[in-house]
Amino acid sequence: MKVFGSDNYSGVHPAVLERLAKVNSEHAVAYGDDPVTAEAIEVLRRHVGPDCDIRFCFNGTGANIVGLSALLAPWDGVVCANNAHINTDECGAAEHMASIKLYTVPAEVDGKLTPELIAPILDAYQGFEHARQPKVVSISNVTEYGTVYTPGELRALCDYAHSRGLLVHCDGARLANAALSSGVPIAAITSEVGLDALTFGGTKNALMGGEAVVVFNTRHHSGLWQLRKMNAQLASKMRFVAAQFTALYEGDLWRECAGNANARAKQFVAGLKGLGVTPIYSPDANEIFAILPDPIREPLMERFHFYEWESVPGAVRWVCSWDTTAEEVDGFLAALKDALDALPD
Amino acid sequence: MKVFGSDNYSGVHPAVLERLAKVNSEHAVAYGDDPVTAEAIEVLRRHVGPDCDIRFCFNGTGANIVGLSALLAPWDGVVCANNAHINTDECGAAEHMASIKLYTVPAEVDGKLTPELIAPILDAYQGFEHARQPKVVSISNVTEYGTVYTPGELRALCDYAHSRGLLVHCDGARLANAALSSGVPIAAITSEVGLDALTFGGTKNALMGGEAVVVFNTRHHSGLWQLRKMNAQLASKMRFVAAQFTALYEGDLWRECAGNANARAKQFVAGLKGLGVTPIYSPDANEIFAILPDPIREPLMERFHFYEWESVPGAVRWVCSWDTTAEEVDGFLAALKDALDALPD
Amino acid sequence: MKVFGSDNYSGVHPAVLERLAKVNSEHAVAYGDDPVTAEAIEVLRRHVGPDCDIRFCFNGTGANIVGLSALLAPWDGVVCANNAHINTDECGAAEHMASIKLYTVPAEVDGKLTPELIAPILDAYQGFEHARQPKVVSISNVTEYGTVYTPGELRALCDYAHSRGLLVHCDGARLANAALSSGVPIAAITSEVGLDALTFGGTKNALMGGEAVVVFNTRHHSGLWQLRKMNAQLASKMRFVAAQFTALYEGDLWRECAGNANARAKQFVAGLKGLGVTPIYSPDANEIFAILPDPIREPLMERFHFYEWESVPGAVRWVCSWDTTAEEVDGFLAALKDALDALPD
Amino acid sequence: MKVFGSDNYSGVHPAVLERLAKVNSEHAVAYGDDPVTAEAIEVLRRHVGPDCDIRFCFNGTGANIVGLSALLAPWDGVVCANNAHINTDECGAAEHMASIKLYTVPAEVDGKLTPELIAPILDAYQGFEHARQPKVVSISNVTEYGTVYTPGELRALCDYAHSRGLLVHCDGARLANAALSSGVPIAAITSEVGLDALTFGGTKNALMGGEAVVVFNTRHHSGLWQLRKMNAQLASKMRFVAAQFTALYEGDLWRECAGNANARAKQFVAGLKGLGVTPIYSPDANEIFAILPDPIREPLMERFHFYEWESVPGAVRWVCSWDTTAEEVDGFLAALKDALDALPD
Repeated sequence: MKVFGSDNYSGVHPAVLERLAKVNSEHAVAYGDDPVTAEAIEVLRRHVGPDCDIRFCFNGTGANIVGLSALLAPWDGVVCANNAHINTDECGAAEHMASIKLYTVPAEVDGKLTPELIAPILDAYQGFEHARQPKVVSISNVTEYGTVYTPGELRALCDYAHSRGLLVHCDGARLANAALSSGVPIAAITSEVGLDALTFGGTKNALMGGEAVVVFNTRHHSGLWQLRKMNAQLASKMRFVAAQFTALYEGDLWRECAGNANARAKQFVAGLKGLGVTPIYSPDANEIFAILPDPIREPLMERFHFYEWESVPGAVRWVCSWDTTAEEVDGFLAALKDALDALPD
Repeated sequence: MKVFGSDNYSGVHPAVLERLAKVNSEHAVAYGDDPVTAEAIEVLRRHVGPDCDIRFCFNGTGANIVGLSALLAPWDGVVCANNAHINTDECGAAEHMASIKLYTVPAEVDGKLTPELIAPILDAYQGFEHARQPKVVSISNVTEYGTVYTPGELRALCDYAHSRGLLVHCDGARLANAALSSGVPIAAITSEVGLDALTFGGTKNALMGGEAVVVFNTRHHSGLWQLRKMNAQLASKMRFVAAQFTALYEGDLWRECAGNANARAKQFVAGLKGLGVTPIYSPDANEIFAILPDPIREPLMERFHFYEWESVPGAVRWVCSWDTTAEEVDGFLAALKDALDALPD
Repeated sequence: MKVFGSDNYSGVHPAVLERLAKVNSEHAVAYGDDPVTAEAIEVLRRHVGPDCDIRFCFNGTGANIVGLSALLAPWDGVVCANNAHINTDECGAAEHMASIKLYTVPAEVDGKLTPELIAPILDAYQGFEHARQPKVVSISNVTEYGTVYTPGELRALCDYAHSRGLLVHCDGARLANAALSSGVPIAAITSEVGLDALTFGGTKNALMGGEAVVVFNTRHHSGLWQLRKMNAQLASKMRFVAAQFTALYEGDLWRECAGNANARAKQFVAGLKGLGVTPIYSPDANEIFAILPDPIREPLMERFHFYEWESVPGAVRWVCSWDTTAEEVDGFLAALKDALDALPD
Repeated sequence: MKVFGSDNYSGVHPAVLERLAKVNSEHAVAYGDDPVTAEAIEVLRRHVGPDCDIRFCFNGTGANIVGLSALLAPWDGVVCANNAHINTDECGAAEHMASIKLYTVPAEVDGKLTPELIAPILDAYQGFEHARQPKVVSISNVTEYGTVYTPGELRALCDYAHSRGLLVHCDGARLANAALSSGVPIAAITSEVGLDALTFGGTKNALMGGEAVVVFNTRHHSGLWQLRKMNAQLASKMRFVAAQFTALYEGDLWRECAGNANARAKQFVAGLKGLGVTPIYSPDANEIFAILPDPIREPLMERFHFYEWESVPGAVRWVCSWDTTAEEVDGFLAALKDALDALPD
């Protein structure tokens, strides 16, 4: 079974498993004070830039909270899109674990925040005693709509946020897909555009499980280590999280994996268009959203295991993974063609 | 390098790695709705009893919070030993993530709670509007002092707690070591004595990383799934957490691993005694605490990487692991003998 | 100085002060276990119905949190209008104090929630492990836009919420104004329509300071008392909060005070319309919102101390109080007429 | 009825009520931006020193949380006595509202913290990733045992805390009693000894209700205003909280009220000693603790409404108030004498 439900349905790249076996010898100091973890941090620094703190977490929810917390005082708030993963898909972890206040902004067109979209929140609340002070803009890149911010869009947003006294956090669960989509190095969409904190994704790009928090700039230099521990994100046998990142990012494996996912999505979109089905958002990376006719939607969802997209009536989401094959995409497209052909005129 | 610093310095048992490779095929539904996870749950049920909810978490801190939260209303409090891991080693995660109030009880003699020790807390606070209501007694078994509750002690504590309207949670990071130390099945120190929730440890017993929350009885049947997610403990590629537990607990691997750790500790204690060093707590499982003379403590700690035990001046802690060998224990004992012999009279 | 900035700019009705002096004799048991408090609770029960728990809090933010918490499990969420006081004017107290997750719904037309507006949130999140479960619908009545729900609207909303398994909370900071606006008893817009919890306002209606939480139906019968204390809302000298409510609600004082505020607002609106200024929302109670021409807005705001309404460009808000006089309204209207007349054509 | 249950059983001094009536004219800007509040702040500054932020809160629990939060980052912890009000009498508000971690220290002898008592906590946790970092020492003065820190003790504690990188918070619910007991100005036990934050009590010293947070030194200059609001401690009609403080502290009323309470306690203690009853802690201010024989304890508690002191078997607590009379003390002492005389030999 290989399906289009999510890129976290996929398994682990064999090279990652091999690396786990390789570091599985003897003892290592727990909680990250070991050479395997140190190596992984250096490998990631080569991608995001030298001047940052990096620490590994278990999952995206945890990494987002640690990264956001590194930027926030207790009276601060976070501006995000109403479709942000931290708002809609993390079960209120931000509010539960870290008492974070989210100011949500409609971003229905393409899932992206812009200076124009966030300005009203800042105008309304900055300096107002009765409001958490907007302090962090949190974006997802790839966005929740499968679109990708251009480096120019990112820089404009960061510059604007900084000019208003805010910091910028990026949920990069699919950061590799975003960089490849833009055709630029990872630094060009992170440190070089002015991000202050980042969730550097691994799980969705062929790892077994692990995300890295990268903090470029923080209010909280003294307590960053505690923030990870107190949010239950500190692995005791850390080397087995870290080694996965080394396997993925020391060479071109990240590029190979995310590149395949993006390429399969391109193939998927081309096929859709040939069948007269147009994506509702720009399919910049490895996710595609489109509306399917009612009678065929459920049967196809059941057979190929993908999900409805609640935000738009009749819409669905497909995701391609590091291990999706061209044949699998063609197989789905053929089934879709058959289903469409069978529809009454 | 193999040392005595902690059982989470050790690596992963090869059979666990093999199982991870085995389940790494094709796609699986994310977040635990997959057959690998279902199998692991059934395997654990064979050990703890059939009537419970089981869900896998990333680490002990996370699992403790999910398990405690399953038993607590917001106005409830937790009674624990002042040396409890949740009080002293989790960076205030309980307070930070779940706003839990801990009522700490001195348990210096052997790290165990008893009805006598907790009764004053209940007498002082039950029914008192100005106090969180004591609702859960949380213990560690193996305790933080390396001692093990007998089934009789556990039953007496649970019976007493229940008779006062409280529930009982057990942090079982070293649960396998405890069961083997007592010479009873795991059920005999969990469901059969009346525990209400349990952290069923894996990481310290040869897994790469994973703990299971077991809830036998809950105030919160409807929201248990959310509690895991909102505490950032829901793995997307869950099968890779779950499969580790299957590898460990479907046969005798758990017994072999924890049994080795306990046996090496027995050997260690016998050697210590032969050198005139007496453990300060009963070394019931795989941890040994003793006082070492000042001049030799630091050099030995540096060479064999073990830690001071802050609670008692001059004391240290050694931990044996699933992969500790008899030769390694003998090696340390020989070095200790040399160091002691070299001491001036 | 009497102005139109807010109904909490006003002072305390003399009868309330007299009542405070009257109960200021000898000692009374602290924290509400006294006859003055018992009497006040009975007085409020005559208004909201006999079958409820009532407890006094310090202010609206505290009362809202206690009332909401009475209805929520930790994994539950609250659906509210994006303009709800709990979302925009309480500095994230809900998130900070009680880790509450708010699902905000645009309600720009008239500030009211309807079944149609909340249904998409329920459809999207009910039963979804990755989402706090929508459990409470929280409304304000009077709304934040100065409109008032009809009893029919309230009943329809409560019925719908209950049919979907949700409970309904009402922030009634201006509840007396709402009841008088609708021409019905307070019970007719609270217990009789099916509310589950209520903040029963006092401060904005001539009290010195105090709000009452009324819980008609709760998940949490055992811990309600603790919820107030643990949210720092339990007054030690409670009789001085409670007695204010007795003074206001034992007879017709509440009706006199809120009735005057509503009547002055009616006069205000009639005057505005005569000057060609039309309210942007239906001015159902004691608040009026309208757009003023740019050149005159700031000078009038400064002289009569009222505020901009950020949500609509060029708009302002006026509030009439229990002590606003007809002359004061006329005085403002005359000034407005002069300002409008002086505008260039 | 006048009893010995607590100093918050007492009423409001008539001069305070008069002041409330006096400021009850016309309108005032809400939330503290009014001249009555500004005056009260200046009055308090004359007592605690000029260089501080002062803001009024509703009650001691709220004020403690705001004051502590002004000193804490999220990863910080608070060291306090195990009998501290914030640990035992505030229903876990610190943990619930602000996720604060308390490190409790036994202080059974006299309720006071000393450098020697807190040093082990600092030694154990400073720099340890797995622990909230001890950052604030919180004391009560008057202590929960009715003892009073000398200025020298306070300075030694503050100096030690500062030398270890910590800040000091004082719960001064009975601060006036403490200053008078020591025979020094209030500044001499607050700013001059190096306190960093203070709850400056009012309610227990003849006010209707109100406490002031005083921050001498903060990590958080930018967000102090928000901290009050987000903890539900910002009164809308603030002038009625503030004016009480002006009435109490602009002249000698505070001295008269707290002085009477202390003097009545001295009389009480003298009488006790004459009857052979010795206080178990030094009765430095207005609270007395002693053991009463079993047969007479309950009847006297019922008649004169005072409470058991749970920490010591057989012990009770009496509290004298601003309005306790010499006759009332004598009345109790006579009743106690009768009861003791009636005991069988």
